[in-house]
Amino acid sequence: MYYIGIDIGGTGVQAGAVDNNGKILFRKECSTDVFGGFEKIMEDINQLVRNMLKENDIEFSEVNSIGCGIPGFINKEGQVTCVNLGWKEEDFIKILKSKFPEVNVYAENDATVAALAEAKVGSMEGCNVGVMYTLGTGVGGGIIINGKVFNGAHKMGSEIGHVIIDTNDYDCNCGNNGCLETFCSATAIIKYAKKLIEEGESSKILELAGNSIDNINAKNVFDAYRLNDRVAIETINRFKKYLAKAIAGMINTLDPEVISLGGGVSRAGDIILDGLDELVRKYIVFKNEKFADINIAVLGADAGIIGAAFLK
Amino acid sequence: MYYIGIDIGGTGVQAGAVDNNGKILFRKECSTDVFGGFEKIMEDINQLVRNMLKENDIEFSEVNSIGCGIPGFINKEGQVTCVNLGWKEEDFIKILKSKFPEVNVYAENDATVAALAEAKVGSMEGCNVGVMYTLGTGVGGGIIINGKVFNGAHKMGSEIGHVIIDTNDYDCNCGNNGCLETFCSATAIIKYAKKLIEEGESSKILELAGNSIDNINAKNVFDAYRLNDRVAIETINRFKKYLAKAIAGMINTLDPEVISLGGGVSRAGDIILDGLDELVRKYIVFKNEKFADINIAVLGADAGIIGAAFLK
Repeated sequence: MYYIGIDIGGTGVQAGAVDNNGKILFRKECSTDVFGGFEKIMEDINQLVRNMLKENDIEFSEVNSIGCGIPGFINKEGQVTCVNLGWKEEDFIKILKSKFPEVNVYAENDATVAALAEAKVGSMEGCNVGVMYTLGTGVGGGIIINGKVFNGAHKMGSEIGHVIIDTNDYDCNCGNNGCLETFCSATAIIKYAKKLIEEGESSKILELAGNSIDNINAKNVFDAYRLNDRVAIETINRFKKYLAKAIAGMINTLDPEVISLGGGVSRAGDIILDGLDELVRKYIVFKNEKFADINIAVLGADAGIIGAAFLK
Repeated sequence: MYYIGIDIGGTGVQAGAVDNNGKILFRKECSTDVFGGFEKIMEDINQLVRNMLKENDIEFSEVNSIGCGIPGFINKEGQVTCVNLGWKEEDFIKILKSKFPEVNVYAENDATVAALAEAKVGSMEGCNVGVMYTLGTGVGGGIIINGKVFNGAHKMGSEIGHVIIDTNDYDCNCGNNGCLETFCSATAIIKYAKKLIEEGESSKILELAGNSIDNINAKNVFDAYRLNDRVAIETINRFKKYLAKAIAGMINTLDPEVISLGGGVSRAGDIILDGLDELVRKYIVFKNEKFADINIAVLGADAGIIGAAFLK
């Protein structure tokens, strides 16, 4: 049996045929026609999947289900709102069903889908309670309880990047101040390093960014950290302090078996994990107890297809 | 069938025989012999329960189980640590079993037990996902998922009073700074009102506390709020702002159906609930969606016995 997973992103749509071990057997992609609008993208997905199946001689009778990871919010009625794609309460599930009447269809937020993939065949494999933080341009999250996606009574849960953990010197895109996202995203890292440099601190970060402050990216900051750059050290230590506070809050709340860190920022996994357990221990209540294993996600970009394929 | 619930507090132990509708049919209490130590208290509990059953002509064959709410932490091995009682990893479940070989025995943290009671027959009745904040001298919490007590992989969860939500001007008893407890407990309310008064603000709170700043309690502050006292208004508004941030964080994480506020502070329920929904909406991500009903716990002190009786 094949499980079809579709990862809808701002620039491309990835489809894959996955086996029940989470292995992607076939894949195909197309660009995301943002200007074409919702209906156009849904028809592109239809063609993408049908072409992928045809090219690989797969019949619909061999397909168990089609799942989608979407870069936005899906409500209880299956409607999707997605700022980056210009979607507002679009009838996603209804249209998806009409395109694929042959099989069951599902959709969840992409960070949730990634967490499901990691829980099934990745860094959180076999966990009963697991939480994944996706540290990218923003901070997303996915919560697994009893081995299944958990997103609460109104499907609003697991937006753990917008939990308020302190006061910050700039507001979050969501309109609030102090969200985890403003301390622990790539954006937050870049902003804080820039601030220190603009305040007059000299730093190798600037050199690594081609001497243009506007070109600084998170990788530059981590690379400068490896060179013992003072600005980079201060920036990354601050990032880790707040990440530890957020993780401790999650342990004090859900006490998961495993916490996985994914997203672009997690590529500097060695730097992030170094000393993180000790920091987290400082911020939890029961300092002598064993707590969650904190690790780095392993499925990378494939988590989108694999997790979507496992939706049900 | 009778379900025995035992609520162990710092000054007294309450036992009750509860029916399967959560009604306390019989009850009996004794004082908590803190100086007598762990073994003495356990034997007192044994006598308390056996006397209660005898006085009401109940046989052990009519007893389903005995559950205890404890004012501390119980680990996966059934050992209890409880600062107020001077207990450190005491073999609670083992000793409880030896005292009552006739039935199954259970124990959970008292705030968790209160949440279970509210979920079974109180303010969160019938909920699938519910969270209770116990706003007292400290802030405790209980989480219900799938109608059952949820406390995580290492039984460390639901310590939601120690989630860090901002920076505060005094440290928490747990050693950290910025815990919810330091913003939203009775202690926090008293400390902040005192601070404003000590800074020179005149206030009716002082009068209500018999003109002694050291006598101020949380009720004085709420009473002064009703009299439009400026210090009280500032103190309670600050309390509500942080409570709203914490609740929003919980909605962004677990998105419960219902959030219940219990503990001594919740007796000023009308003041707390007034405008709270609007404040919470401000701090959540999906501002247009329906979110959890926020209400006041209804079982009061009986929640301890009732919830303990429902443990299994």
